[in-house]
Amino acid sequence: MSKTVMNPDPKRIITKFELFDEYWTHKIIAEFNNQYVKLAKLKGKFIWHAHEHEDELFYIVKGSLMLKFRDRNDVNLTEGEMYIVPAGVDHLPVAKEECWVMLIEPKSTFHTGSTQTGRSVKTEDQEWI
Amino acid sequence: MSKTVMNPDPKRIITKFELFDEYWTHKIIAEFNNQYVKLAKLKGKFIWHAHEHEDELFYIVKGSLMLKFRDRNDVNLTEGEMYIVPAGVDHLPVAKEECWVMLIEPKSTFHTGSTQTGRSVKTEDQEWI
Repeated sequence: MSKTVMNPDPKRIITKFELFDEYWTHKIIAEFNNQYVKLAKLKGKFIWHAHEHEDELFYIVKGSLMLKFRDRNDVNLTEGEMYIVPAGVDHLPVAKEECWVMLIEPKSTFHTGSTQTGRSVKTEDQEWI
Repeated sequence: MSKTVMNPDPKRIITKFELFDEYWTHKIIAEFNNQYVKLAKLKGKFIWHAHEHEDELFYIVKGSLMLKFRDRNDVNLTEGEMYIVPAGVDHLPVAKEECWVMLIEPKSTFHTGSTQTGRSVKTEDQEWI
């Protein structure tokens, strides 16, 4: 039985963000069609990485986020804006101030894609909230 | 080449809603991982239906929405709340006042699931905005 069925309560996004403080650590809030819906608080610069087989949807809940790319112009996103980073595209998220994002990506997606660093969170260590 | 790559601009959700007026007619704004991101304006009562193989994510952008079910308690959603209707679950969306929703579901999803009525929009007739 999936978590979707086990936890069929409505998810109030803003309230879920009050449940954690760490930066750059995704929390899973829902599962559907083999995708996870995740929330993350971002601040500062992350690391360059790409997800070879998975598109990644970014939706900005609060604040603003710059996505830097090697093969296209940078993208600046603010509250209420959405952007999809296609599979295989190198990107670097940068948040000058704290930014809250909702991410949607396949369950198989590794935190830092094909890059492994001390900041990578293992897929099996991802926490549900 | 996918529309994601063809149209890599950020999508400002609220602004996209200004581009159409019809109720109960989804507009596609993005594609990722074989899913569509769709916007819809809802008002009144839709029809009972289920999507046999597809989970359906509802995210309320403006207003409120009741989802009625045959096998579980009704769910009342307001702005900023999300709910996933699992595949195979009969549901009836009801909006007393105009409600704006973002839906995410597989590209294969038929508007009214296994129910066909005069209100059904054919999958190939779905419009991108």
